[in-house]
Amino acid sequence: MKHIKPIDKNHCGVLLNLGGTVLVSAGVSGDWDVMPASWACNLDYNPGKATLVMDSTHYTRKLMDNSEYFSLQVATTGIAKETLYLGSVSKFDEPEKLKKSGVELFTMPGFDDVPLVKGAAAWLIFKKVSEPHNEKTYDLFIGECVGAWADDRVFDNGQWHFDKAPELRTIHYVTGGQFYEIGAPINVNVDDML
Amino acid sequence: MKHIKPIDKNHCGVLLNLGGTVLVSAGVSGDWDVMPASWACNLDYNPGKATLVMDSTHYTRKLMDNSEYFSLQVATTGIAKETLYLGSVSKFDEPEKLKKSGVELFTMPGFDDVPLVKGAAAWLIFKKVSEPHNEKTYDLFIGECVGAWADDRVFDNGQWHFDKAPELRTIHYVTGGQFYEIGAPINVNVDDML
Repeated sequence: MKHIKPIDKNHCGVLLNLGGTVLVSAGVSGDWDVMPASWACNLDYNPGKATLVMDSTHYTRKLMDNSEYFSLQVATTGIAKETLYLGSVSKFDEPEKLKKSGVELFTMPGFDDVPLVKGAAAWLIFKKVSEPHNEKTYDLFIGECVGAWADDRVFDNGQWHFDKAPELRTIHYVTGGQFYEIGAPINVNVDDML
Repeated sequence: MKHIKPIDKNHCGVLLNLGGTVLVSAGVSGDWDVMPASWACNLDYNPGKATLVMDSTHYTRKLMDNSEYFSLQVATTGIAKETLYLGSVSKFDEPEKLKKSGVELFTMPGFDDVPLVKGAAAWLIFKKVSEPHNEKTYDLFIGECVGAWADDRVFDNGQWHFDKAPELRTIHYVTGGQFYEIGAPINVNVDDML
């Protein structure tokens, strides 16, 4: 836990900006679930908000429907296999899914029912914003960030840098078990055009 | 144009799944604008839908408000500088913005007022789905995909592969002129866990 540092929750957007696969988690009275999702996105700053598409067939959705909170966690190369497993098995079919996945879970003070996954690059906890029409019509949830943390080996001073811990590179799902890792930084300057 | 191949618009989701920066464009009677956005995301399959957050201060937003269509285009290393420029200058201040950006534009048959940018890796045209509450409250737009194309050097058979044309790698914006390029593929298999 020594590398997990808090991030200003009003500036949590940069944690999701790379657009990689996230792990979504939710819990109700100790009944926890975690699953991956690609369809999560920033929505606003100050306060930080995000959207998440979560189909009604998922166990995690059932928990989200009955909880005030959910979390989005930035999945990484180091837990790519666990991430794919968590999306390949439903807790409806396999009650021991989390144990079998091999992930190690932890919680943050004040959010005892929101499981977080070790080995992610960042962790964001959202309070649901009630939008029944979006949830019903599009399975689209909106959350307001109430807590955010990042691994300071790869995120510091508002910037990502993966050279110190390549196992914490973000992963971006395609299909059929294939991800792409995030690659090299490129710095662009347009001062000569302005 | 010889590498631009149509993609089934019901399966356009995989074109946006890597989560990179997109170029948003819209047009009204020949008045066109293009700007980058990180806050675009898949919403549904069959028909393909996506969400886009577009602040009301942007010229592109003004065009979107007055048009039936908008496009999302997957930005690439080869046009990273143009992409940053298009986000650094507003057409409200610089009417010659598109010309000065250096991008080459084209259109697709049936969508004469939706400018598309050469050098992107994929192009998706969306018809707006009317959701006044989301647009007003969150600057959140929903579109249904009505046309999709990809560069067949990097997207074929439903899969991305960037080895043939590294200049078409997706780019993922952080802040302050810094992007990350997409990196190496990683293939994960969980058959031993199921």
